[in-house]
Amino acid sequence: MTSLLRTPLLRSTTLGAAFGGTALLKAELLQKTGSFKPRGILAKLASLSTEEKQKGVITVSAGNAAGAVAYGCALERIDCLVVMWQGTSDLKAAAARGYGATVDREASDPGQAFARLEELRDATGRTFVHPFDDPIVIEGHSSLGREILEDAPETEVIVAQAGGGGLVSGLAVGAPGARVVAVEPEGSQALHEGLAAGHPVEVQPESIADALNAPVAGAHTLRVCVERGVESVLITEDDVRAGFRFLYERAKLAAEPGAAAGTGALLAGKVPDVEGRTVVVVVSGGNVAPEIAAAILKEE
Amino acid sequence: MTSLLRTPLLRSTTLGAAFGGTALLKAELLQKTGSFKPRGILAKLASLSTEEKQKGVITVSAGNAAGAVAYGCALERIDCLVVMWQGTSDLKAAAARGYGATVDREASDPGQAFARLEELRDATGRTFVHPFDDPIVIEGHSSLGREILEDAPETEVIVAQAGGGGLVSGLAVGAPGARVVAVEPEGSQALHEGLAAGHPVEVQPESIADALNAPVAGAHTLRVCVERGVESVLITEDDVRAGFRFLYERAKLAAEPGAAAGTGALLAGKVPDVEGRTVVVVVSGGNVAPEIAAAILKEE
Repeated sequence: MTSLLRTPLLRSTTLGAAFGGTALLKAELLQKTGSFKPRGILAKLASLSTEEKQKGVITVSAGNAAGAVAYGCALERIDCLVVMWQGTSDLKAAAARGYGATVDREASDPGQAFARLEELRDATGRTFVHPFDDPIVIEGHSSLGREILEDAPETEVIVAQAGGGGLVSGLAVGAPGARVVAVEPEGSQALHEGLAAGHPVEVQPESIADALNAPVAGAHTLRVCVERGVESVLITEDDVRAGFRFLYERAKLAAEPGAAAGTGALLAGKVPDVEGRTVVVVVSGGNVAPEIAAAILKEE
Repeated sequence: MTSLLRTPLLRSTTLGAAFGGTALLKAELLQKTGSFKPRGILAKLASLSTEEKQKGVITVSAGNAAGAVAYGCALERIDCLVVMWQGTSDLKAAAARGYGATVDREASDPGQAFARLEELRDATGRTFVHPFDDPIVIEGHSSLGREILEDAPETEVIVAQAGGGGLVSGLAVGAPGARVVAVEPEGSQALHEGLAAGHPVEVQPESIADALNAPVAGAHTLRVCVERGVESVLITEDDVRAGFRFLYERAKLAAEPGAAAGTGALLAGKVPDVEGRTVVVVVSGGNVAPEIAAAILKEE
């Protein structure tokens, strides 16, 4: 059994027609744990010393990193504590517990969860694994960019959604020849504000794209995004929903809202200069509660 | 541009655990037109003479064959008339129209649609392409079985759903070393009754798995199924729904109900002698209206 999968790259004629180019979907929702996160997280866990592993691990997450850290810890038999917050996905918390992790959801919002993390880390002496802002995590995510270029060397643009910026940083490192476009909902724009300010800026994220609700972008991820010229695009909640429905109806993929922002941006014509280009869109996760999926699918 | 895709074979640890074996999902819902149907239909269209093509084509279908025939006719610039019936999927009728076909839905049920087909064929002189009961169509579908064995030579059992029997016949021809299990809903068991009687038997199919609502199995498909020892399993409507939800939530695939019957049968423990086996389940299509998908996802 392999702990990571090579996910398929699927052509979408209909999406390509929407922007007058060629569209390929990197179906990373089929990755282990249902999101891209284990690529970076497993690399990070492998880098820990025996002593660091013996202390147990602690992380903070909107949910997909929680599942990936819990999964990696189960593979390596490391004790795992995950800090989430009220309002995060029950399904994602249950997935982390399913891998044997303890989940703490005392915090009332993302900002408080980071404070809660520090408190619990100090109290327990656990080894902190950052959900995105770590050079080893970013390097681990870069395998996604390399796979894309191996399977489609003609790729000119890679579009992906951003929370704290780990995914787009990894893509920029792994696919240095391609433009990388980071898409965020207007209500959850930690990376966009960080890029504008030149340093991490705290935000109060609120979007149906729960996987993207990071309260702040990372210092490492911002540096990589600036150095590599990652572009930033903002979209509406309706664009996210339209991307979600498109992926379901046309691409037959059960993506989560947070994995549909890039698709939504392309459909809305909000990614500049893609006409005639070969564009890969990363469909980065599929962890959505069926009742949320049902609500979005019914809306049309 | 290729007119057919090689679809991925995805491992599902969770489904394997459900029956104590190894499960692989053949993600054929990612095929062109969103179902396996073009494999056989394109082979059939390619076999027609220039004169037969010039007369235009007519077919009858619950919807997926309609889309495949319309798609193939668009590629070959053949005029296409599709007979469906009242109550068939609006989405599938729209897809056929989207490829340029004319869709006739005067008939009130599947049985009447076959009568309507004969009437329109005689009136127009069009060339009839059967949606499943044709040796060339079956041979075309056999590529699915060959691909499965190429990608996973260790395959012992292939589970797929059946309407008129075209898919399971093709699998049996293409993968002669594997057991092939045909799954049907109790309310739509044309193949099961045909196998029991030794000849095609007319039924009044009624299932949420609309793609499986064939009014009768084929003479050719029955013969292949008997010769090759295709097994028959019946499941409930709830099993279909459970398969649908599993594919959405765990496999991240937006399958249609008619493509989830095999998965539902395995989850319900209704496929005999699979413990310890390597089992491939064909997820044969993804053409489901979002409001139907929403209703099934909400039910849990």
